[in-house]
Amino acid sequence: MAERVVRHFQEELEQLKNRLLEMGGLAEERVRTAVDGLVSRDLTLVQQVLQGDGPINQLHIEVDNRCFMLLALHQPMAVDLRAIVSAVKINTDLERVGDLAVNIAEAVTRYLEHPPVKELIDIPRMARVAQTMLRDALDAFVRRDTALAEAVLNQDDELDGLKTQVFRELLTYMLQAPSTIEPALDLILISRHLERIGDHATNIAEDVIFMVSAKDVRHHATDRE
Amino acid sequence: MAERVVRHFQEELEQLKNRLLEMGGLAEERVRTAVDGLVSRDLTLVQQVLQGDGPINQLHIEVDNRCFMLLALHQPMAVDLRAIVSAVKINTDLERVGDLAVNIAEAVTRYLEHPPVKELIDIPRMARVAQTMLRDALDAFVRRDTALAEAVLNQDDELDGLKTQVFRELLTYMLQAPSTIEPALDLILISRHLERIGDHATNIAEDVIFMVSAKDVRHHATDRE
Repeated sequence: MAERVVRHFQEELEQLKNRLLEMGGLAEERVRTAVDGLVSRDLTLVQQVLQGDGPINQLHIEVDNRCFMLLALHQPMAVDLRAIVSAVKINTDLERVGDLAVNIAEAVTRYLEHPPVKELIDIPRMARVAQTMLRDALDAFVRRDTALAEAVLNQDDELDGLKTQVFRELLTYMLQAPSTIEPALDLILISRHLERIGDHATNIAEDVIFMVSAKDVRHHATDRE
Repeated sequence: MAERVVRHFQEELEQLKNRLLEMGGLAEERVRTAVDGLVSRDLTLVQQVLQGDGPINQLHIEVDNRCFMLLALHQPMAVDLRAIVSAVKINTDLERVGDLAVNIAEAVTRYLEHPPVKELIDIPRMARVAQTMLRDALDAFVRRDTALAEAVLNQDDELDGLKTQVFRELLTYMLQAPSTIEPALDLILISRHLERIGDHATNIAEDVIFMVSAKDVRHHATDRE
């Protein structure tokens, strides 16, 4: 490729990465807002999440189009090709995280129709872990940092542990007081949604490792579960 | 491209499609086996699902590699490029369906530790709808059939309706008899896993429409929800 074309490709790739970072920032913010709405019992926050998925969805389409243009016009090879295919996958993951923020907000809306089941400690913690995983996975993508990507894979165990703890604790409440069954169910669903956000961060981290090293860690990662 | 290279590309693309069909068949079978294990209370079936995700995971890696080779060696354009990028995404969706079969099998294992909550009607129905959606979505991909893909998008509403019905009915059981809380929770989780299989079929159908017509229906589809 001529130097000008190469530079153009690298600039386009930078813009692509910036769009993914922007999407990741939006997705993370939406998850945080939904969980803040849960903790502070503030339906205004929840409404924001329910209504505001337009920007992420637009970015989803834009990123896909950018990937197609880069593949069609520049026919990249090796690590550049892997970067763009990874971007296609990461784009899907981030869009799903946006959808999960909506699923959380829906469950929070139902939850807030009932008195609080208990003080919430583990769910906000799960949200923080999931958000950190997502941010780290995207940073790892942008910096091509496999050590950071590996660290994301390790955080997934913490999230799984918290999910199990949340489940057991809420089950005890449900068994002791039937009036808590409905709201506790929604808390369980919220914890599952947060776990899935961690799964998406894990997918992104696995894609980063593949992109940088062409090493496929995915089904080792699956075996770890 | 020279004629020989073109023919070679089309042959490779055929093989790629066959691998995705094979993966889809395996994923569907695993979901069916897990739900059969639930209905017939047969732990042997459930064990098969828990232990047998090797073949799908191998196909997942193989399909990804084939997509990379096709992109790198043939630098396809237009509909061929969209077909391969769609294959990358469909591959991810099918691998997740395989994971969901494992999640279902895990929930079934716990469920079978308790006496049955009720006769199961809607959950096997959900499983059949999800399997049909998956098979139709893959057929639509292979035949580039957008009408069939549109039909898949419509089936998603039926699955959503069944999920809501399952939830309401089980909630009633839980409120009336605390001994059903634990097993009913697992049935609710199973219905959510089946709903997600429908979501993956929906993703595949949306990719087919994009591949064939370059028309992005995704966030119209999201708006329908």
